[in-house]
Order: sequence, then structure tokens, then C-alpha cells
Amino acid sequence: MDDCLFCKIVKGEIPSYKVYEDKEFIAFLDIGPINKGHTLIVPKKHSETFMHMNEDELGKVMHVIQKIANAIMKATKADGFNLMLNNQKAAGQVIGHTHFHIIPRFHGDGFKHWAQGKYKKNEAVKITNEIKRFL
Amino acid sequence: MDDCLFCKIVKGEIPSYKVYEDKEFIAFLDIGPINKGHTLIVPKKHSETFMHMNEDELGKVMHVIQKIANAIMKATKADGFNLMLNNQKAAGQVIGHTHFHIIPRFHGDGFKHWAQGKYKKNEAVKITNEIKRFL
Repeated sequence: MDDCLFCKIVKGEIPSYKVYEDKEFIAFLDIGPINKGHTLIVPKKHSETFMHMNEDELGKVMHVIQKIANAIMKATKADGFNLMLNNQKAAGQVIGHTHFHIIPRFHGDGFKHWAQGKYKKNEAVKITNEIKRFL
Repeated sequence: MDDCLFCKIVKGEIPSYKVYEDKEFIAFLDIGPINKGHTLIVPKKHSETFMHMNEDELGKVMHVIQKIANAIMKATKADGFNLMLNNQKAAGQVIGHTHFHIIPRFHGDGFKHWAQGKYKKNEAVKITNEIKRFL
């Protein structure tokens, strides 16, 4: 897409700190890293969200993610990492071109995970059945 | 593994709010949901972390995740979702059996994303080259 930042990076019209590229995917540093080494994995073909990725891309992207995560772990000497995908604005998606975050993590780096809730009686059963209805 | 909670759920030895099952994967509600409908996608074959998942599982899991995310979105009428993988304890992994979180998200649900940092001059170039060294 003409006005898409990541499409411009794919085409090389905008520079990036590129760590990886193959026929279908490109990976580059997030310039606003949560921890240093925070990297974005991006399908080259424009899709607005993960829900628009095609079968072929879905089948290949996890291999790319595993390979890059391994390199980030070694390069940053991290103790772990998060793989994160924000799907749509309500979930924190800022750029309208599918991208996966790999965030290296370190013991004691202080990033807190979101608070967990509880289900009321029967509520979990009801939601389970609702989800199953659409599968 | 004998003492693995998720292996016991896979075998049906421990109950779960199961939403999906096929030959290789199972999905059930997280009983401590960040938002209602928060679901875990789990490879049936025991692997301690995502880095231990095999080629075949890597090739299939994103199709399963997309399908279940779609059903969760419809069932919960969510405005978006996060796909999250916590790899190792430092990244928030609590159960030592690979699992992916799908967390439905709603406008104004108040969950804040982690603060982003900046790179000092030349630091991004150095990290890019370090990561590339391991690819």
C-alpha cells in the first residue's frame, strides 16, 4: 500500500535496522524498544491484520519467528522473550500492517504482566460454549 | 510428562474448559483470564518452550490460532485481541509446557502496554549486527 510505513520499509524507501529478510518476510528493530533488541517480524505482502494473513504465510511465519528469537536471545544474552501480536487498535496495534514483536526479557527487568481475573460460577461454561459455536 | 499440568489436561486427567481440539493441539480457557474469553492454545506433545516446538507443529499452529482468535472475537464481541507467548520464566512463563495466549481486548479496557525506550547513537547498529551474526 502506498501510504503504509512498513510497505515503504519493505521496498527500501524508508531505512530500517534490518536483521533478516527472505522472500516473504522481513525483520527489523523496533526503534522504540521495550528492551534493546526488540524486533518486528513483518510479512512483506501487505495485510492489515494477522486475521488477513494467508495460509502460506501462516504456515511459514513461526519458523521465521523461532529462528530470529534464537538469534536475539544469543545476541542480547536474554533470559527469555515475549512474542506479541497486537491485533487491531483496541489491542495496541499502531501500524496497519501485520507485525509480530519479539521482546527479549531479563530477570528483574520489571515489566509487569496484566492482572488476571476470575470467572463467576457458570460464566466459564457459558463463554466456552459461545466460542465453540463459532468453531 | 508425568508431572506436567498441561499434559494432564491433554490426557483428560484434569478437567478444563475446552474450546477446541484436533490431532496436535488443544485449546481451553485460562482460568485466570485477563479478559473473559482469554484462551490458551497448547501443542499436545510436551515441549518445555516454544523453542522446542518441532517443524510440523510450527507449520500448523498459526492456522489454529487464527481460527480460534476468530471464534473468540465473535463470541466475546471483542474489538481486538493480543496473541502472546511467554518464553521462559523471565518472560512470565509459569507452566513449563508451550502455550500461546489469545486475549480478547476491548476499547477502554485499560490494559497498558509496556513503555518503549530509545537507542543511543550507534547502539541500534551494533545490536542489528549482533543479531545478524546468529542468523
